[in-house]
Amino acid sequence: MGTITKALDLLSHFNSERGEIGLASFVRLSGGDKATVRRHLVELEKNGFIDKNPQTRGYHLGPAVLRLASVREKHFPVRTAVMPVVDAMAADLEELVHASLLQGHVMSPVYHADTLRHGLRVIFDEAEMLPLHATSSGLAMMAFGPESVLDRAIAGGLSSYAPNTVIAQSDILHLISRFRTRGYSFSDGYFTKDVISFGMPFFGPGGDAIGTLAVPFPRSRYTADLAARVLVALRDGCRRITQSCGGTVPEALDAMWDRLPDTVTEIDIEGPVS
Amino acid sequence: MGTITKALDLLSHFNSERGEIGLASFVRLSGGDKATVRRHLVELEKNGFIDKNPQTRGYHLGPAVLRLASVREKHFPVRTAVMPVVDAMAADLEELVHASLLQGHVMSPVYHADTLRHGLRVIFDEAEMLPLHATSSGLAMMAFGPESVLDRAIAGGLSSYAPNTVIAQSDILHLISRFRTRGYSFSDGYFTKDVISFGMPFFGPGGDAIGTLAVPFPRSRYTADLAARVLVALRDGCRRITQSCGGTVPEALDAMWDRLPDTVTEIDIEGPVS
Repeated sequence: MGTITKALDLLSHFNSERGEIGLASFVRLSGGDKATVRRHLVELEKNGFIDKNPQTRGYHLGPAVLRLASVREKHFPVRTAVMPVVDAMAADLEELVHASLLQGHVMSPVYHADTLRHGLRVIFDEAEMLPLHATSSGLAMMAFGPESVLDRAIAGGLSSYAPNTVIAQSDILHLISRFRTRGYSFSDGYFTKDVISFGMPFFGPGGDAIGTLAVPFPRSRYTADLAARVLVALRDGCRRITQSCGGTVPEALDAMWDRLPDTVTEIDIEGPVS
Repeated sequence: MGTITKALDLLSHFNSERGEIGLASFVRLSGGDKATVRRHLVELEKNGFIDKNPQTRGYHLGPAVLRLASVREKHFPVRTAVMPVVDAMAADLEELVHASLLQGHVMSPVYHADTLRHGLRVIFDEAEMLPLHATSSGLAMMAFGPESVLDRAIAGGLSSYAPNTVIAQSDILHLISRFRTRGYSFSDGYFTKDVISFGMPFFGPGGDAIGTLAVPFPRSRYTADLAARVLVALRDGCRRITQSCGGTVPEALDAMWDRLPDTVTEIDIEGPVS
């Protein structure tokens, strides 16, 4: 790992549970030696990426990340394109809807909405990364994103997140090929037990899939009718976001999407891999 | 400059005018050698801080900055605390209102609002950094922030941004001491010709000023009445944000604020330094 990656990797330890991290915790989390970690923290602080709490002496993320996020949105307003679409989908479906962007070998959530109509809800944490092979978001990216995403995703050992997580390479490839003939992905409890989720990709100006929309809901609410409504909403949403981003949906995928929801009756949610 | 700072500094070249930067431009902007810059870009890309546009081969800011901004907001929701306050102030004053956070030796804008009522408007760019010594935001931070901010701000050579910019160290110190007896800062064309701006600080849980609110407007609209309304709105806004952030306004400053707007009739906007 290069010096820069080691330093940037320190930032990855901040998440929704961990907003402030002290030197000792950084040393423990990163496995680096104390002097090096301290030197990296000093440089990150000097550049506004972290701030020191003068009372606890712990570090939290600095204002530089807000400025960079704002500059990115100004030029490449994915979040701005995504927000109204996700809001409208959630209002229509009355289920949780979330959007994520590909970031290296994980999906990074950018926005979610939930009308909170149901007493039984899937809880979504925007600050958490989503593993590619275990979520409908990630699987949609593996199926419809650049081929290198799939190659990289299955190259390493695959972690299990729930009893149904598919971790054998051959099983993942089987799933991906099914998704490619359907134009969407699903997760049947791969990430969270008893949660079904459907996913679809949206495309950026470079022609590649840059992110995905997903709709997870409790398995107990699954009906063919809900699945059909979810898939049509995902398709319309991904088309709208793709258009706002100046991208294009690949022709073959677009043709599959045109046939929705007639093809939905064939959906066979059947556990890990049949 | 350390390796990490050199790499992170590459990110600082992105701004509202420059959303995509190619290798050659990075080399020119950073003054580094091509092989080093390329190596740094590869590491930044690997960590999701930049993305390569496959068609132009230029780089833009990556999704990692969105995730980090979202994690920061979750734990330290300054932007969330600032937005409704700034919106309400802009609606009330019918002038541009903006909020910025201290980031090293500049102020980094986080939010702004303008009801766009006037044909003559101050144009504000949220993606630009504000110099400390030449803006009411920065001067408020120098006057009411940690002493080290003032020391660092006047240590180097000070750039001029407009005919009125105060650049002599002794003049700046004179201004700062005036602001400290008033409980607010102003800029009389220091950053933009013919623009007057008032600024005040808000405080974080650590007890230090962490950011500032400012209201800039054309000099031609200046009246003692508008100034009074602006200062009262700034005071109320900074108190609300400080409270939302779990901070406290220092006692002496709070007492000065209590006396507003009665002390406003003494405002003497008089050009650079009298």
